[in-house]
This record gives sequence, structure tokens and C-alpha cells, in this order.
Amino acid sequence: MEIKEFQELIHQIYLTRDLQRGADRTFLWFLEEVGELTRAYRRKEDNLGSEMADVIAWLASMANLLGIDLEAELLKKYPRVCPLCSSLPCTCPFR
Amino acid sequence: MEIKEFQELIHQIYLTRDLQRGADRTFLWFLEEVGELTRAYRRKEDNLGSEMADVIAWLASMANLLGIDLEAELLKKYPRVCPLCSSLPCTCPFR
Repeated sequence: MEIKEFQELIHQIYLTRDLQRGADRTFLWFLEEVGELTRAYRRKEDNLGSEMADVIAWLASMANLLGIDLEAELLKKYPRVCPLCSSLPCTCPFR
Repeated sequence: MEIKEFQELIHQIYLTRDLQRGADRTFLWFLEEVGELTRAYRRKEDNLGSEMADVIAWLASMANLLGIDLEAELLKKYPRVCPLCSSLPCTCPFR
């Protein structure tokens, strides 16, 4: 599935509710999902993939509310090389 | 670009470094990026799309380290309907 297609799916399922909730409260929900993922990772639970999906879905809701095209932003920031050293694989000093 | 293709791109650019850093410290970096996105949103900065891209990229690094297929998880969790009410658009009680 294309990134753009997933963002459009979240638009179709949730935009009306996201608009009703507003950006601030939708962002809080995104952060709640980040918290759930953190807890699942810390506890070594087996639902990490599902929690990662929720984080991306709520990020897509935020992007829809703010008129941001996630696929375009990803391709702009990561144009098939590291954005800092412009190499593939990355050759930046290790951090 | 397919979600799977983006995860594979992050694998090619960063897997060696992600393995060297390890999952715990990579997760901390993901959380740092969530913090940067939160600050940019709170301050109404114009780099929100770029910060969202970083959050997704670090999530892809974590997924690579943990052997999680993000595209498969997204399709499993959001099978073109809301996972709770199974409707499109979502008809759950408003939250």
C-alpha cells in the first residue's frame, strides 16, 4: 500500500471526527498512542506492531488536519539517501 | 511510494548503525523526534512535515530492529474500515 493511500484511508475513516475533535486534542491522542507503544516496548509485549500502526494512524490524522502530505514529506526528507551525508548507507559520524 | 519500500529504504540507509546503537537507544531517539514534533506543533513552526517524516523514519528503524513489517501491521489494524466499528467512515461513539 502506498503511503499516500494509507493517509487517504485514514482521511475517509476519521476526518469528520478529527475535525470535530480539533488538532490540539488529536495531537494529544497521538501522544497517548506513543505512550502506549513505549509501555508495550518497555514491557516486551507482543503487540508492538499494532501499537506502531496506531502511532502512524494518529500521525496521519494530524497530517490530514494540517494539510500535510506525508509521502511527499518522506520523499523530500529521505531522497533515497541519508539527508545529512547524502550517502547510502549513511556514513555520518556514529551517534 | 509503498510503505514497505520506505521501511526498506530506511533499512538500507541505517540498519548497520541502528544495530550498533541498539533498540533501547534507537527508541529513545524516536521519542526525541516525537518531542521535536511536539515543540514544532506547539510553536506553530513551518517544519511540521519534516518533523513528521523524522518520527516515521525512526519508527521504521525500530520496526527494522524488531522484525516488524509496518505495512502488514497497518493493513491488519486498519483493513479499510475503523477497527472498532468496522465502518467507513467510523461510526463509533465520539471521543
